[in-house]
Amino acid sequence: MAATSWEDSVKCLKGVILDMCGVLYDAGEDGGTPIPGSVEAVKRLKASDLQVRFCTNETQATREVFVAKLQRMGFDICVSEVFSPAPAAVAVLKERGLRPHLLVYDGVVPEFDSVEKANPNCVVIGDAAEKFSYQNLNDAFRVLIGLEKPVLFSLGRGKYYKEDEGLNLDVGVYMKALEYACDVEAEVIGKPDPMFFQKVLDDMGVQSHQTVMIGDDLVNDVGGAQHCGMKGVQVRTGKYRPSDEKHPTVTADGYVDNLAEAVETILKLRGQ
Amino acid sequence: MAATSWEDSVKCLKGVILDMCGVLYDAGEDGGTPIPGSVEAVKRLKASDLQVRFCTNETQATREVFVAKLQRMGFDICVSEVFSPAPAAVAVLKERGLRPHLLVYDGVVPEFDSVEKANPNCVVIGDAAEKFSYQNLNDAFRVLIGLEKPVLFSLGRGKYYKEDEGLNLDVGVYMKALEYACDVEAEVIGKPDPMFFQKVLDDMGVQSHQTVMIGDDLVNDVGGAQHCGMKGVQVRTGKYRPSDEKHPTVTADGYVDNLAEAVETILKLRGQ
Repeated sequence: MAATSWEDSVKCLKGVILDMCGVLYDAGEDGGTPIPGSVEAVKRLKASDLQVRFCTNETQATREVFVAKLQRMGFDICVSEVFSPAPAAVAVLKERGLRPHLLVYDGVVPEFDSVEKANPNCVVIGDAAEKFSYQNLNDAFRVLIGLEKPVLFSLGRGKYYKEDEGLNLDVGVYMKALEYACDVEAEVIGKPDPMFFQKVLDDMGVQSHQTVMIGDDLVNDVGGAQHCGMKGVQVRTGKYRPSDEKHPTVTADGYVDNLAEAVETILKLRGQ
Repeated sequence: MAATSWEDSVKCLKGVILDMCGVLYDAGEDGGTPIPGSVEAVKRLKASDLQVRFCTNETQATREVFVAKLQRMGFDICVSEVFSPAPAAVAVLKERGLRPHLLVYDGVVPEFDSVEKANPNCVVIGDAAEKFSYQNLNDAFRVLIGLEKPVLFSLGRGKYYKEDEGLNLDVGVYMKALEYACDVEAEVIGKPDPMFFQKVLDDMGVQSHQTVMIGDDLVNDVGGAQHCGMKGVQVRTGKYRPSDEKHPTVTADGYVDNLAEAVETILKLRGQ
């Protein structure tokens, strides 16, 4: 089989960015389960000469709690290697002097402890899951519609993710709902926002063309990374659906069955 | 003050279509309250030589229950004069042999009694209010995403309506959410769908240019009616907001403070 375009570029790779849910583990009510081979794959990648970072739109827990969960699953990972939307949002809110009304999962609220929230002048939504009740969405709507110029931040714009055996609606769906209700365009913080990816590249000290992003979300992981000049590889785990390989606008630079196959390919082509 | 364009056309009017919530009454947890002057205005209009129909996107109750509520408020109204989306949806479902998964308010479910619902091959959403839980929206999403070609019907596409002292999100917001989640375009049944308005005109036996629609929703009532060749007048009651009068794409043919003023103007100009 001919090498795909991402395989051609493996020799000049300097950095690898990994999506988390659907690549490292499958989410579930019990906290989730590692995808077979992923724990070992991360270990091998980190033992190589490549820079490795984790980039997630996870907003159901603080980074500390989230990383502790991954460590319990056996992953070699620490907080400073993980990039998630909530800390990035806090930086934006402080920079612009904005006071958010939060519609987020309880677990991520502590990330916003240092931000003034009384008398809100913007709304921040994350993957709030069952907290996306009619009442809570209506409360967020009323804050927005009461502002002279509504400002809405969305922590990612994903459509859905896989948990246990089913697909679950993600934050992007509720972002669209509020956009329509208030005639406003949300500012997305997290993947696929190029500024979000750029911070990860800066932290690794590498250029985008020296980097590959591996994810299960064709639009937000693969397409987002490609938009920044990285290679984007899709795993056939997590929310992957066969129709992704015939997507009208995004074509991955490569498809692999899982993270283990991706890492095996990378290390083999680099002679490691 | 110069006569507005709708006043010029009052003399050749043959039919009047009235929106209900926000024009006849304000919704509320106790069932709602008539807007001052509206009971008398409907009575005067029906005593005139004009055809009168009521056209609503109300989908929280069957027409029978809904009309009984209006009658208790004192309105001279009967079921055959009221056009609402659920009966129109039932006709479409039967015609196309579709079995709906319903995400609607409990009160309107009996409208769908005659429709087969096992093994659903489409989704119908209405203004489900607090039934728009995360779980219920996710269930509807899973039905759609599991279909080879998702079919979504939305009973109206309103953004919000006024209830008691606040604005509440309407079905259109959740329609947009599911459209985005499933890459599908919903088929709207109800205002502003031209086919929906046409049925009302047919029932009155009048032409669109002989008809005025009076509503509080600039886009769905006024814009929808204008799109069909009717005049569209907005009342400054219900969900009306002053910014409606500066809307970028829809300009009403006239604005009135309330239904009583609209009817007073119509009858006066017709010498009645």
